[in-house]
Amino acid sequence: MINNCAKIYNAVKAEAVLTEAEDLRKYLTGISTSFGYVLTDANGTVFYTDSRYLEGAEKALKDTGIVVKNFVGPLENLLSGYKEIAVPVGRTLYGDYEKLKNLGLKICDSLPAFTAAMAVKEDYELEYIKKACEIADRAFVALLELIKEGMTENDVAALLEYLMRKFGAGGTSFDTIVAFGENSSVPHHETGLRKLSFGDVVLIDFGCKYGGYCSDCTRTFLFGDDGKHEDFKTAYSHVLEAHMLVKERLTNRMNGKEADAIARDCLKKYSIDKYFTHALGHGIGINVHEFPRLSPKTEDKLSNGMVFSDEPGVYFEGQYGIRIEDTVMLDKGRVISLTDSDKKLLIL
Amino acid sequence: MINNCAKIYNAVKAEAVLTEAEDLRKYLTGISTSFGYVLTDANGTVFYTDSRYLEGAEKALKDTGIVVKNFVGPLENLLSGYKEIAVPVGRTLYGDYEKLKNLGLKICDSLPAFTAAMAVKEDYELEYIKKACEIADRAFVALLELIKEGMTENDVAALLEYLMRKFGAGGTSFDTIVAFGENSSVPHHETGLRKLSFGDVVLIDFGCKYGGYCSDCTRTFLFGDDGKHEDFKTAYSHVLEAHMLVKERLTNRMNGKEADAIARDCLKKYSIDKYFTHALGHGIGINVHEFPRLSPKTEDKLSNGMVFSDEPGVYFEGQYGIRIEDTVMLDKGRVISLTDSDKKLLIL
Repeated sequence: MINNCAKIYNAVKAEAVLTEAEDLRKYLTGISTSFGYVLTDANGTVFYTDSRYLEGAEKALKDTGIVVKNFVGPLENLLSGYKEIAVPVGRTLYGDYEKLKNLGLKICDSLPAFTAAMAVKEDYELEYIKKACEIADRAFVALLELIKEGMTENDVAALLEYLMRKFGAGGTSFDTIVAFGENSSVPHHETGLRKLSFGDVVLIDFGCKYGGYCSDCTRTFLFGDDGKHEDFKTAYSHVLEAHMLVKERLTNRMNGKEADAIARDCLKKYSIDKYFTHALGHGIGINVHEFPRLSPKTEDKLSNGMVFSDEPGVYFEGQYGIRIEDTVMLDKGRVISLTDSDKKLLIL
Repeated sequence: MINNCAKIYNAVKAEAVLTEAEDLRKYLTGISTSFGYVLTDANGTVFYTDSRYLEGAEKALKDTGIVVKNFVGPLENLLSGYKEIAVPVGRTLYGDYEKLKNLGLKICDSLPAFTAAMAVKEDYELEYIKKACEIADRAFVALLELIKEGMTENDVAALLEYLMRKFGAGGTSFDTIVAFGENSSVPHHETGLRKLSFGDVVLIDFGCKYGGYCSDCTRTFLFGDDGKHEDFKTAYSHVLEAHMLVKERLTNRMNGKEADAIARDCLKKYSIDKYFTHALGHGIGINVHEFPRLSPKTEDKLSNGMVFSDEPGVYFEGQYGIRIEDTVMLDKGRVISLTDSDKKLLIL
């Protein structure tokens, strides 16, 4: 494993780096904990956590050089002797920041260093993400064999989450969204008790975690063809065209706004861009939403090694919605799809 | 549904109350969203969210008096005309706080009002929690029929999460912890590929959400009796005694430290209190960990209507751990168990 503590410490150039936020702590230690502080200075790194995690952390970190200690607190005790401390300011609560200031510490911001380092994935991180994507793909394919008329949205979500777990996922990236029929027109529908009927549009947005890293994928399909879906089929082909065009044209010379425009301009050709009510995508890693953002509002710079979603969608209120999403990565200036189950319009 | 916006507004007594934190937003609106601001002033409440949630939020909130609007930003635009604004200071990021201050706003703290209001559950909240507890109980009982030698910790977690979802849960309260054999001695073990063998101790910590409210439960049992578990059985009876004593003696005249001491003193009688390395419990509601804390370090006041965990545990490094946890509530000065599957030592 890469020494991420040293990477951040060297980038920040402060006397010491103190990190509490759960995702940043996971990035530094490689393990998932719900409480702890990571403190790095010129002498190395100490991970302070509590009794729930001590034994596990000691085992996991024994060859990393990170020392594990029981946090007895208060936090002030860890910081005596320092004049300067780096914390992720934009992720630090007002009260905690004030406490550090009142200790007379000079405060630097470590967040830009984390954002830059975490956005570009190391090989070991890519392995985790690829595995999370493979599991999601495999579970989706297995799910298609099991979907039956009369199942509720909840039933389908339960089954898909079970399959992901069964195939090795540590958990879901987020609560699975399953939307049948008109519910698909709500981009983030709350999965419920709507039952599946012949001819329904089905939208499923799902992802899982492996080694603490996320996948994220959406598929939209028809549960039987009742002959009333010509508009849907046309719109589907346009969304798929936008999705594929992003994969073809997006390169590492672009920013988030330019990437988003590839899909948005494509939908504009068909006069349905006004139904594309969200952004094209978001970075994916330890967090299912992280840097970079691919949206009309952002100039986040895209570069090789970044992993993000390509998810154009259109939503016709009260009728239906379509979203086609893959987790992708940028490698040598080209997009590689990491989730990749079939995207040709599926009619079950 | 109770008008929680008015409840908080009246308690805070500021010109306007602005709320962004996800759990507090869920408390105010009753619906789950991953982005939004709730703004209440003397004229009522506006919920600003984005296109992913607009249609769903409008439907859900149509009879509540809460107006739903698309957030176009920047945040400053929502706040013009106010002199004073209440935000949950302890939950507000440093940068956001500074932004409000730079607008010349007087800032009050809404967090104490949220903490007090959310800790004491309304009837509709109790209904959700009770249902989340029933689902967890039912899933655990169903799981016991399906556990087989050779299954991995992951397999068992997958199955239990599937059953909770199948029985109506919206998701899990947290990633299910399943620990076999020596892994049970790590209080928050990371569920993995360890296979179940005859004679293993099995510790399962699990919970689900219903209507956005959590349940939390832990059971420890033996997978077959290989005759080598006399110490375990003795320790189990002591932890169960501590667990039950809390249910018998805890009342609404106590604080968190006194409640914790009921269990700790009981384990002390058997000289195993030093292996009880965590706190007795934590409040449960929209968050699986919230006010009050039942620990040697806190004087959080316990009162009727609060829901929390009763979870004494002991952990013998490298050997085994035992934790027995129910979600309970305090009602008319007495503890009522909300999760309540059998706690007599189970030998499968």
